[in-house]
Amino acid sequence: MHTMSTITLDDAQRAIAAKTKPLGSLGRLEDVAVRLAVLQQTLKPVVERTRVCVFAADHGVTDEGVSAYPRAVTAEMLRNFDRGGAAINVIARSSGADVDVIDVGVDCEDDLGRIQRSSRVRRGSRNMVTEPAMSNEDLDAALAVGADAARAARAEGVQALGLGEMGIGNTTAASALLSALSTHDAAATVGRGTGVDDAGLERKRLAVERALARHRERPRGARETLRCLSGLEIAAITGAALEGSRLGMAIIADGFISTVAVLAALHIAAEVSPACAADLARSLFFAHRSAERAHNLALDACGGFPDCDARPLLDLGMRLGEGSGAALALPILRAAAAVMREMATFASAEISAGERAPDHRE
Amino acid sequence: MHTMSTITLDDAQRAIAAKTKPLGSLGRLEDVAVRLAVLQQTLKPVVERTRVCVFAADHGVTDEGVSAYPRAVTAEMLRNFDRGGAAINVIARSSGADVDVIDVGVDCEDDLGRIQRSSRVRRGSRNMVTEPAMSNEDLDAALAVGADAARAARAEGVQALGLGEMGIGNTTAASALLSALSTHDAAATVGRGTGVDDAGLERKRLAVERALARHRERPRGARETLRCLSGLEIAAITGAALEGSRLGMAIIADGFISTVAVLAALHIAAEVSPACAADLARSLFFAHRSAERAHNLALDACGGFPDCDARPLLDLGMRLGEGSGAALALPILRAAAAVMREMATFASAEISAGERAPDHRE
Repeated sequence: MHTMSTITLDDAQRAIAAKTKPLGSLGRLEDVAVRLAVLQQTLKPVVERTRVCVFAADHGVTDEGVSAYPRAVTAEMLRNFDRGGAAINVIARSSGADVDVIDVGVDCEDDLGRIQRSSRVRRGSRNMVTEPAMSNEDLDAALAVGADAARAARAEGVQALGLGEMGIGNTTAASALLSALSTHDAAATVGRGTGVDDAGLERKRLAVERALARHRERPRGARETLRCLSGLEIAAITGAALEGSRLGMAIIADGFISTVAVLAALHIAAEVSPACAADLARSLFFAHRSAERAHNLALDACGGFPDCDARPLLDLGMRLGEGSGAALALPILRAAAAVMREMATFASAEISAGERAPDHRE
Repeated sequence: MHTMSTITLDDAQRAIAAKTKPLGSLGRLEDVAVRLAVLQQTLKPVVERTRVCVFAADHGVTDEGVSAYPRAVTAEMLRNFDRGGAAINVIARSSGADVDVIDVGVDCEDDLGRIQRSSRVRRGSRNMVTEPAMSNEDLDAALAVGADAARAARAEGVQALGLGEMGIGNTTAASALLSALSTHDAAATVGRGTGVDDAGLERKRLAVERALARHRERPRGARETLRCLSGLEIAAITGAALEGSRLGMAIIADGFISTVAVLAALHIAAEVSPACAADLARSLFFAHRSAERAHNLALDACGGFPDCDARPLLDLGMRLGEGSGAALALPILRAAAAVMREMATFASAEISAGERAPDHRE
């Protein structure tokens, strides 16, 4: 992707080292600034136009009693998004980001306001406990919905794209996908999601175990794993991450579900080539550490890919989804770009460098 | 201060629980939202007008060779602030905050641009190793400079005030103050600051030990400790925290030095009355966990005061000062206020509450 690359990591690191501050004293903000410079191939990176895509779908696996909320809540929340009253609307407004809500597969007949129904692949994924969550055609369509959303964002000048989701039952789907893409069993990847009680937690674990057993014989490969063991909005996030990265945007994963979808994208890219996975990895930022306990496992799995800095930017015990963590983290990317773009250098500001001792910290 | 209080903690917690999200799912963002509601005595809190005050001064203790940078850098950095090229300018602009740079005691003769010299108490504090850092009159004046800056901010409509500093040598002063206000010796409170080498670190530790020994016989009390063992900009931050809190603003401590100055404010308030300290504590937010190692000790000491939530909002390994961490954390306060003010409720959005099981997390 960056074969004509002129701004190397070294260039960006030298540029940030020349700024009027002790070496390394802006910590991880400097890492973000350096990565944005390389990603945008300029020492004056810009993160001004930002967006959070919220992909929404229902899940056949809710038939197994895995959620504390009824399935109808997905559509009800989409109407809430449309009226601007949900957390993602409020936090994105506060962060200066716009919100694009995309119905990939909500199970309802009624009007969802200004939210386009034309992206809907079908009314909910199938129950992964008994059959693949998606047909081949469903998966292609869901990946394309994500890619289309990324292209639309890029065409409208977006530099940093957060990826969120809404879908009753989707922590169960994400747990199954994480288990299938890693060595962690259902006991490790299943958590309380929106807040199921102990009996609900047990139903979730059992559903994930049965789904994993049901698809144990599936053909190998990340794409097939995604098809059998996830959901429409999860696949859309995977498609948006792959295409958004290809188009040079910074991609911000949100919480547990979004991170697992991005993990699937890393696996798919790695099956193309290590370089393809590294290109994707260099585009990825991880907004926050979710309180959903398996998020750490998903972050660690992403961090296992070369060039993937999967340290989350925020750690505030959030576990809402919707892209709310991505929206809250966007100002950090904006500030990092501004530091690289706008800060004076010791030379330009004529400041005594003193000993300018090399940094003694780890 | 809030004797006519109409919005209690319970009111604010009930209001946030009614929002369209699983209970507690916005984690610490909800805690911040609740605290802002109580602080502003409204369920529609606003954090739109924000400011970072950067108090600057030089330190007599630099005679002991405690910094990697020469003393002249303080004035040079103020000129950099004035031209808008420093980290605090850039990050504050990115966060939508304004910056007020206040010369409490810079040691220079030349022009510092638009930065008012009228607040300057004297050209640097005295060397605390050999005499009190400030006279009684100096301390009164420095506290008043801080209080004046807080009043000016409030008069201009600021709702959240970050407190930063610039002063070559001021980590040494802050280490001495922290040791004197706590049980930690110099070996624990002294760190590398802007990046001194091993020999410089040893000089810092020795300077702090000698200063502590020199003032061991001082009259008791936080005010006297602040006078003997800190510096002009540190005292100004203490004054700004006390007055800013009294005026109802959210006060955002930045890194190590700012947090130690706020700790002194808590001690001073506690010497008035427990209620006075609790009022201050309820105004305080801690922007980030600095890489300066003794910052954890300072945060813990603040957190020991009743009603003081000293968990930092960010943890990005920053250690620059200037208020840069406070500027970076301001969007989190803004988002928290927006969540409380603007999010729909389950009732208003007509969303099925489902089981709405009580949260099973810790």
